[in-house]
This record gives sequence, structure tokens and C-alpha cells, in this order.
Amino acid sequence: MTAKVTPRSEDYSRWYTDVIQMAELADYAPVKGCMVIRPYGYALWENIKEGLDRRFKATGHVNAYFPLFIPLSFIQKEAEHVAGFSPELAIVTIGGGKELEEPLVVRPTSETIIGYMYSRWIRSYRDLPLLINQWANVVRWEMRTRLFLRTTEFLWQEGHTAHATAEEAQEETLRMLNVYTEFAVEDAAIPVIPGRKSESEKFAGAVTSYTIEAMMGDFRALQSGTSHFLGQNFARAFDIKFLDENNELQYAWTTSWGLSTRMVGGIVMVHGDDQGLVLPPRLAPIQVVIVPIWMEDTQRSRVLEKVFQVEGMLRDQVRVKVDAREEYSPGWKFNEWEMRGVPLRIEIGPKDVEREQVTLARRDLPGREGKRTVPMSTLTGEVTETMRAIQANLYQRALEFRQAHTYDPADYHEFKEAVQNGFAFSWWCGSAECEAQIKEDTKATIRCIPLEQEAGRGRCIYCGREAQERAIFGRAY
Amino acid sequence: MTAKVTPRSEDYSRWYTDVIQMAELADYAPVKGCMVIRPYGYALWENIKEGLDRRFKATGHVNAYFPLFIPLSFIQKEAEHVAGFSPELAIVTIGGGKELEEPLVVRPTSETIIGYMYSRWIRSYRDLPLLINQWANVVRWEMRTRLFLRTTEFLWQEGHTAHATAEEAQEETLRMLNVYTEFAVEDAAIPVIPGRKSESEKFAGAVTSYTIEAMMGDFRALQSGTSHFLGQNFARAFDIKFLDENNELQYAWTTSWGLSTRMVGGIVMVHGDDQGLVLPPRLAPIQVVIVPIWMEDTQRSRVLEKVFQVEGMLRDQVRVKVDAREEYSPGWKFNEWEMRGVPLRIEIGPKDVEREQVTLARRDLPGREGKRTVPMSTLTGEVTETMRAIQANLYQRALEFRQAHTYDPADYHEFKEAVQNGFAFSWWCGSAECEAQIKEDTKATIRCIPLEQEAGRGRCIYCGREAQERAIFGRAY
Repeated sequence: MTAKVTPRSEDYSRWYTDVIQMAELADYAPVKGCMVIRPYGYALWENIKEGLDRRFKATGHVNAYFPLFIPLSFIQKEAEHVAGFSPELAIVTIGGGKELEEPLVVRPTSETIIGYMYSRWIRSYRDLPLLINQWANVVRWEMRTRLFLRTTEFLWQEGHTAHATAEEAQEETLRMLNVYTEFAVEDAAIPVIPGRKSESEKFAGAVTSYTIEAMMGDFRALQSGTSHFLGQNFARAFDIKFLDENNELQYAWTTSWGLSTRMVGGIVMVHGDDQGLVLPPRLAPIQVVIVPIWMEDTQRSRVLEKVFQVEGMLRDQVRVKVDAREEYSPGWKFNEWEMRGVPLRIEIGPKDVEREQVTLARRDLPGREGKRTVPMSTLTGEVTETMRAIQANLYQRALEFRQAHTYDPADYHEFKEAVQNGFAFSWWCGSAECEAQIKEDTKATIRCIPLEQEAGRGRCIYCGREAQERAIFGRAY
Repeated sequence: MTAKVTPRSEDYSRWYTDVIQMAELADYAPVKGCMVIRPYGYALWENIKEGLDRRFKATGHVNAYFPLFIPLSFIQKEAEHVAGFSPELAIVTIGGGKELEEPLVVRPTSETIIGYMYSRWIRSYRDLPLLINQWANVVRWEMRTRLFLRTTEFLWQEGHTAHATAEEAQEETLRMLNVYTEFAVEDAAIPVIPGRKSESEKFAGAVTSYTIEAMMGDFRALQSGTSHFLGQNFARAFDIKFLDENNELQYAWTTSWGLSTRMVGGIVMVHGDDQGLVLPPRLAPIQVVIVPIWMEDTQRSRVLEKVFQVEGMLRDQVRVKVDAREEYSPGWKFNEWEMRGVPLRIEIGPKDVEREQVTLARRDLPGREGKRTVPMSTLTGEVTETMRAIQANLYQRALEFRQAHTYDPADYHEFKEAVQNGFAFSWWCGSAECEAQIKEDTKATIRCIPLEQEAGRGRCIYCGREAQERAIFGRAY
């Protein structure tokens, strides 16, 4: 019998770790703060990569690869950048048996080394825009780590673009925020709030940072992807200049944007339940699992024949797996694949064979509600339709959950309660002092100032002064 | 006008670097021994990855990701392994602003950390075989580096498998050598010689190493992929044990196999010519480039209309690019795309439009020989056929080149001359002394003992004693 995951209500954090380990998404590594992404988790990441990479290419970007090691002096060239990243650096001091003259930083992000290369490649406005993305590992030394959410090494993509004008760079920043939003909504079935970061929360070196924020099953926020308008900060630090159409030398305008394996943690926490993982069909490594059922040996071959016939019918259409292992009972397999979040199970027993039908069981709907029999003749259409229905249901459910836990508190007293149980969408005067005081009082931070704002003005939830924008406040991972 | 690459006959090594930089495959990084893989080079690597990954999955392997950092003590657990890799290690000694208690090695290869994880995951024979591959960056400190061929950091895949018996592990080792051979021949159009490494050339920690060896345009050998039977060496060092069917505890048998971005260098050197790159169609980022030609402005729109019509016809079939830039002449573009190795160029001018035809120009056949006009009505079929013909021709040409420069010297005097101008396929008695002496005399090493051997025996090319196998000797990259 399979071990059970800790129920969410008992200990959410333990539930999270149980699910990830028991579903074999990841495991702890023997190096502090690092993890191993196991095959099932990596297959999920591969599908995330594919969904993003396709969208990057469709918006004109190309992939490249820049070095893992960055000279320490590079990191120090942009003042805010070094201040932000210094405490998190892993540094190589020995290479080939010798002490290095200049220590090398293991990249925490690549603005600096890419900026250096861009300064060599960009000569004139004809070389712009330069639209490059990199899939890579990065390292940020972390004290408190959690699988996928915060690890010393993680996998991500980082886009780095250079443009001739501020407007174009701004447009790019928002275009990629929009790509992230679309990916989260369409592929991960995660409703996200795209918005601007406050000054205190922005990327070290950015002029403006944008983010997509999602609500997890414990009401906390997860920053799920960020896009930064870097102005000319890195262009000045790395001398990225171009001759414009009037033959005048100008600094370029740059952007960067990233999304990481953290997204896997988000998928676990948005959709998972007490049975374990629930994966959105678009990203699930296995979309359909077929489990044969028989009581007597005489039924075995007839059932298996039908099982493999169904597999053959579905193979070109969905990622399908047959679980024909004989050392485990059907019930055990049901639990196992539910725990691993496979969106749809097909059960085939002797009666199904007789009646030319199969039984479908949806992962997202418990027990009987998600079960029904379907004639073989309409199976392929039904499977496609069910995949679509599950994907839509997961999104809708997550959206309703977030809406139900997003509050519009009337005063600071209500606000303090709200951010313990969800998001507060409140007016904010824009002052860093109010923001800091709120954080001290409640541990809640400004997750973002949503791009979508209603017209009008209000009063800051903390100080009562006039405010022009509302912000999403919440406690974050 | 485009700068020209240095002719191969003048300076092969400079030709190689010119081609890589001018075709924008890669560039030097500001970190010693590291390179930047530029978008065009990375697109080539993406196609290599795809060709391999598909074959790995078809042979039952799955992908995963293991940490970049390895505790120094892990590397030291397998005696030969540490001896082999110690001089090449990059070591992190500072993390998060503090001196680390145990230094961390930036992985030069991952047998040790994967071995550690396998010892935790493998319990019984039911968990075997375990067939995992990883796509990753690795670091080996190098003194003399060359773009793609030998860089401090490089990208590769490393497969790591564990099996219940020596036989199965041996089979796996050869199965993956065969996958590499198939990939090299079918996708990269590179004829390779699969064979065994001699004791002195094998992987540090292996029982037996296998390799695929290719001949470059300057007659030198390039080790293009390796597959290792590790016996129980790493299983003993990392305690990878399983309960067998008789409930007895056994050490597992492991393998590892890798192929890297080095393959890009091989493609450059096997197929390239004095015009620059020549890419095999299967891997070329751009398979067909369409260049519009017009003399007078009145012809422009008619020509461009046809160009985009042709692009539309071919888009689903090949990776096609239109070069409609108006700041460059058609002749300039011909040179540019020849230099970048695009297999097929389609020229469309006013006459072609009139006559409902286009002109095809093959990259692998010089001047008129590779040019012909084709009616629009048969274009798609002709393009498919031409892709196939180019792929076959590149392979055939490389094979004939290697055969023409592989010698069977009658004595050691002839041998010494042979290895300056190609490979010598000679009898070898198996003694390390003969091997070492040959290397000292000629700089040639045993590239491999080919799997394919004719029956019979001969006399060692160096000492004249009886020999049972013939080896490929050559000077290597």
C-alpha cells in the first residue's frame, strides 16, 4: 500500500514536501540547498520549457549560451546590482589546482556578462533590437531552502534584449510579461496577476520590474516570473553603444526577463490536493494512464488486448501510459497515479471489453463525479474533450479560489486580518515607509501594483493619505 | 563586402577559428578558456540535442537534472577517478560571503553525485535498469583551449545507467555507442569508427571505454562521443546495492556515456571548405535560403511576391529563410549564406518569375555544377530530393576522404609518415610500452581498437611481436 501524503490542513509545508518526494518530482541533494530534479519532475519542466520556448521564438527571440563563470569585477560594475547579489554569490577561487588571480562568480543571473558581449556585438542601429534568450542553471546562495521554490542552484531561462529606444525596450518588457501571463493561464492553468513591483521589491539594477503573482493553496503569493526594464543602467556599466540613424553614438536600452523551475512548485501548490499532485493536461508528462483490471486469469489476455488497442488509438493524440504491472493491484495503481497527478485514468475490465466501452476517471473531480463510461466508438473525441474540460476546470477553480481569498479591507485592522488569509487589494500612497511598516506589522509585502487598475482615487490603507493606485498585498514565498 | 576566411591550406587552425567567428557560431568570452555559443551555433546544438534526445528516449531513457556542485570528498571516493580529474577541477570555496567548510567542485562529470543518488533510489532488482540522461554544463580547467573542441566550460549530455548484471551493462554501453554512431552518420553526415579505447586512453574510473572517432579535414582525429562500462567501480565507491531475485544483496553494474558541443567543431572540420561552413541538411538551422534578385525597382514587387509564395510552399517542409534585406546585393548575400553553410540557396529573379521557375544552388557543389533551374510545379519534391542528395553527398565525400587518408603501413618507417597525413590502421601487440613509444616518436595515439576486426593475426607495427588486433593510430585534437 502506498504511503499517504500529509493532509494540507494538518501541515501545508509538510504536505508540499511529501507530494514532491512521493510523486518523485525531486529529491534532496547531498549538497546544502541543492536538489535533484527526478525524471518525472524534469519531464514536467521539459513541457514548461517547450511551452515557453515556442512563445519566445514566435515573438522573434533566439537562444544562445553564455558562460557559467563571471569575473567578480563584472558584478561590481553596476552599483545596485552588486549590492543586491553580493550576499548570494558562490565564488570559485581555485582552478586547475591554482589560486585564481581574479575570483570567478558562478552566475546568479547574466546581465553583466551578456552586457559585456553585447557591447562587442552591437555597432549600429541595424544590429538592434537584439533579442536573445538563454536556458541555464544559476546559483544564489540561500540560507533557507525549499524544493523548487528556493534552492541554491535552479534552472531557468533568462531573456536579455537591447533596443534603440526606451519605448521599444518598455514594449518588450511588457510583451514578455504578457508571454508569461499567457503561458501561466493557458498551459499551467494558473491565474496570475501581472503588475509592477514597488521600488523596494524590484530587481537589483532595474528601472522598473514587472511580475506575475499567483496565489498558492495556503493563500500565500508566489512570484512566478519577472520582466525588467533596465533603462540604460547596464548599457552604461558595460558600454553598450550604437550609432543611430543620424550617425550619433547612443547607449542602448536593455531588458531582462526570467522564469524558473519555481513554476513547478507553483503548479504543485495551486492545483494539488490531499491525494497528491494534480497536473494540468497541457503540461502533464503523462496525460492518460490506462489500468487493466481482471479477476481471473482467463480474462487477462482479453483485457490486455483491449488495453493495448486503446493505447494505440490514443498514442498520437495524448501522452499515454499503460500500467500493466502485475505485482500491484488496480486499486494500488489508482492511488499511485492519482498521487502523481495524471489528469485522466482509463480503466478497462472484462465488462468493459464485453460492452465495447471503457471507464474514464478524472483526477480533478473526486470519486463518482469524475467517472463515466464511454463507448469505444467515441473514445478519441471524448478524451480530447475531457483534456480540455480538465484544463479549463483547473483554471476556473484556481481563479475562484483566489477571488474568494482576495479582500478589499475597509481599514488597517481588517487589512491585517486579510493578509493572514489571502491577498488584500488596497490603495497605497506609494511611500516606502508605509510599505515597510505594513511588512513589519504583518509580514505582508506588496506583491505587485496590478497593471489593471480601476479609474479613481482612494486613501492609503496604512496612512490614509490620497493614493492613486491599488496594490496586491500578501505574504509571499 | 564580406571578409574572407583564411584558406585551409594556408593555416588550418586559423581557418577553423575564422569560420566559427565569421559564421557567428561562437565567440570568445571574457573568462579564460570559456566561449559564448551564439544564436546560430546554439541553433545547431539544439538540432544535435533533438537528434540525440529522440534516440535516447526511443531506447528507454529519461532525462533528469543533478546538482552542479559536488562535495570534494565525493570526487575522491573512486581512486582512478580522482587521479584523472584532480588537475582539471574548478573549486568553489566561498558561498554566501563565507568560507565553506567543505569545498565544492563544479562538476567535471557526474558519476559521483549520481552514484550517491542511485544508492538511495535503488533497493531491489525491480528498480533496475535505471536509465537516466542529463543535459548539462560541465567544467574542466583547460590550459590550451579551442572554440568548441576544448573549452573550460562546455555543454553535453551524460547518460548514467545502473543494471543488475555485467552483461546488461555491457550491452547498454554498446547500445549507446551505436546510438552515437547512428547519430553521427545519419544526422551529422560524419563517418565514424566505433571502437574500444586502450587502457591508457580510457575514462578515469572505467573498466572499458568505447569511442566514436572521426577524421577531420586536416587528417587529425576527433573523439566525438564516448561510452563507458564502469563495472562495479562506482557502485562500490558509492554503495549502489540491490536485492536480487534470490533476496541477496549485490552491487549494481553501471555505465556512463557522453557527447558534447565538441560535435559542432567536428561538423565544421569534416564538411567545411574555403568558402566557410557546410552544414548537413538534417542539422542546419537554416536549410534553404531564398534570395530575391532584381535590377530595376519596377521588378521588385513581382519578385518579392514570388519569393514569399515560395517561402509559403516550403515552410512546412524545411527550415526556410528569406533574405529580403535591401542594403545588401544578391552577390553579397550569396557569399554570406555560403559562408554560413546553408545547404541550399534558391534564387528568384524577374526571368524566373516570368518562366514560372526558380534557380537552385547547392552549397556542397561549387559554381555551375550545383546550380539548376526547376519549374515551380515540381519545386517541393525537388527540394526534398536535393536535401537528401546533399546529406548523402556530404557523408560519402567525408567517407572517401577518410578512406583515402587511412593507411596500412608496411613497417614502422612508413607508419611514422602515415600518421602525419592521416590514420594508420595497424597491428598492435597490446603493450602500453609500444603505445607510449609510438606516441613519443610521432605524437600519434591509439584512437581506438575498432569493433570491426578482420579475422587473423599480424605483427605489432612497433615491436614486431604477434598481435591479435589492429588499432587506428592518429594525431588527435
